[in-house]
Amino acid sequence: MDKAAKRAKFEDVWVRIRGELVEHIAGEGMPADAIEWYGKNLDYNVPGGKLNRGMSVVDTAEILKGAALDDDEYYKAAILGWGVELLQAFFLVSDDMMDSSITRRGQPCWYRAPGIGMIAINDSFMLEGAIYYLLKKHFRGTPYYVDLLELFHDTTYQTEMGQLIDLITAPEDHVDLSRFSLNKHQLIVIYKTAYYSFYLPVALAMYMSGVPASYTLQGKTIEPYKVALSILLPLGEYFQIQDDFLDFSAPPEQLGKIGTDIIDNKCSWCVNTALAVATAEQRAVLDVNYGRKDAAAEARVKEVFEAVGVRERYTNYESQVYGQLVELIAAIPEGPERGTLKREIFTSFLEKIYKRTK
Amino acid sequence: MDKAAKRAKFEDVWVRIRGELVEHIAGEGMPADAIEWYGKNLDYNVPGGKLNRGMSVVDTAEILKGAALDDDEYYKAAILGWGVELLQAFFLVSDDMMDSSITRRGQPCWYRAPGIGMIAINDSFMLEGAIYYLLKKHFRGTPYYVDLLELFHDTTYQTEMGQLIDLITAPEDHVDLSRFSLNKHQLIVIYKTAYYSFYLPVALAMYMSGVPASYTLQGKTIEPYKVALSILLPLGEYFQIQDDFLDFSAPPEQLGKIGTDIIDNKCSWCVNTALAVATAEQRAVLDVNYGRKDAAAEARVKEVFEAVGVRERYTNYESQVYGQLVELIAAIPEGPERGTLKREIFTSFLEKIYKRTK
Ligand SMILES: [Mg+2]
Ligand SMILES: [Mg+2]
Ligand SMILES: [Mg+2]
Ligand SMILES: [Mg+2]
Ligand SMILES: [Mg+2]
Ligand SMILES: [Mg+2]
Repeated sequence: MDKAAKRAKFEDVWVRIRGELVEHIAGEGMPADAIEWYGKNLDYNVPGGKLNRGMSVVDTAEILKGAALDDDEYYKAAILGWGVELLQAFFLVSDDMMDSSITRRGQPCWYRAPGIGMIAINDSFMLEGAIYYLLKKHFRGTPYYVDLLELFHDTTYQTEMGQLIDLITAPEDHVDLSRFSLNKHQLIVIYKTAYYSFYLPVALAMYMSGVPASYTLQGKTIEPYKVALSILLPLGEYFQIQDDFLDFSAPPEQLGKIGTDIIDNKCSWCVNTALAVATAEQRAVLDVNYGRKDAAAEARVKEVFEAVGVRERYTNYESQVYGQLVELIAAIPEGPERGTLKREIFTSFLEKIYKRTK
Repeated sequence: MDKAAKRAKFEDVWVRIRGELVEHIAGEGMPADAIEWYGKNLDYNVPGGKLNRGMSVVDTAEILKGAALDDDEYYKAAILGWGVELLQAFFLVSDDMMDSSITRRGQPCWYRAPGIGMIAINDSFMLEGAIYYLLKKHFRGTPYYVDLLELFHDTTYQTEMGQLIDLITAPEDHVDLSRFSLNKHQLIVIYKTAYYSFYLPVALAMYMSGVPASYTLQGKTIEPYKVALSILLPLGEYFQIQDDFLDFSAPPEQLGKIGTDIIDNKCSWCVNTALAVATAEQRAVLDVNYGRKDAAAEARVKEVFEAVGVRERYTNYESQVYGQLVELIAAIPEGPERGTLKREIFTSFLEKIYKRTK
């Protein structure tokens, strides 16, 4: 199946889920205007993204099975995938409010859509609430139901911690580079992004596929969820560092957008790398020019990035982290046994990310 | 134990819980400023209320046991009680933002406290996230762990639905009485308030006390959670209707605050009762004067309330609902068997509410 067909199949499940969610609140006796509002909230905020996170639940389940999923397996994996997308929608709707963002996915942020405003806060809550309604409806009788609930809880809380550090480290309206550091950057990235974008989809598929908490294979005792975490967190960090680097370095026509991390006072890998090695003079340039809504200031920051060798440092980082990840993945014992890890889960992520240019 | 001592004992458990929550995120490697921020969020928003909801978990558990709780039972019930208070804090922090409220519990709303602003959205999320961290830590091994999780999920979602109806029915800045009705009022009250304030604390205590989904007593088969719901939802509705009525009718020196429901365009029981019976002329007065920030307009609304007999209608409502609740409670079969309902759970609520004047 090609990429577009895979996406279309995944989107078909959304239509069904969306119907279930709206029918449920209708069945609770909600008035027509509330039902309509909720439908719009779902339509506007859930299905329009890249869907990488959601679809990777399906992909991982297929790799773990080693064969195509049957209809029921596909539907279950896709519901979990849409759970990840709902979680992301919950985060994005609220993140845009906290960041005073203007647009998202080429349209006004939900809170800026006509007539919405601060009600978007409660709308974001309902996107999160929908996850647990769906899990209860579709997974209640399964032996791994509690694992799914705890995984969503833990991941949600971790992401909120990451948001908190990000929000107080890099407020858009107050530049203070002394709060930044590569260590802070790593914490933010792992908590705010890596857990929910990389570990969550894989771990959901693992629970659904009956992967146990530990097993022995080829004489090695494996704790597969810990192994997954030990690979997917640095992988998520790598993904975000690359994202930060492309925001600075990629030509807009290649990136598909204009990078705004410098102007937006983002706690990006580039500025943290520069801060770690800057001379007092370069540091002064960064202090004065970082996070200003001003193209000339941005250009001066970019000059410092070039002068301290951010490009070369990125190339070195990338080849080093790639090598480490390849090694970690190669160390996973692999056999035909059901319910055991397959290296392809991780290599498929890594190959999508390595040396991407947009 | 007198009321103040009961409260102090309950508050002691908060000190412990607060420590656990802050230690946990410290153990995750969060930076010092984030740990401090989270501690302030907890201190500012969780412990300063009336604590009725939280303490009623403890009270209910004690009634169900028919004896004083031992230390472990007390601690467990109090953690669940603080879970209810955390849930309420999550709702109040965000509700104040959506309502553009100025103060709460005699101090600025959290989002208006210095340096907080929109970060309060993520802070509210973390108050919710704390619930599931505590449940996992303290209830994981228990046979009723999943019941607790589902109960919190269901109740949260119900409350969010109630918020949604309330927000789109009675926006503070746009008066449209044609959206109001006694039916809408009932829906809002039950979903936004009754589930989490009345059913949730009792049902938590029931699960903790081993009350099963159904049992037979004196030849009657009982589904105790359904029985609890059938009493606590109308009880919660009665409580809110009384609250609405007191906001209109009670002298400020008795109420302890100045009622603002009319000025704030609240979808209150009083206005809905008036709308249901108003003449065309009275309706016109309400349309023009309701929800205006203006004492003369408020006085004209109050005149209509008096003219249509809101006071007498309330008295009739109260005696009727009181009678119904007494009857429902009396119909519960009761015996010394452990894990069965006791009428006192419900009468203790009812007697606290009936004919209260503030
Ligand atoms: Mg943002
Ligand atoms: Mg942000
Ligand atoms: Mg970026
Ligand atoms: Mg309010
Ligand atoms: Mg409100
Ligand atoms: Mg009131």
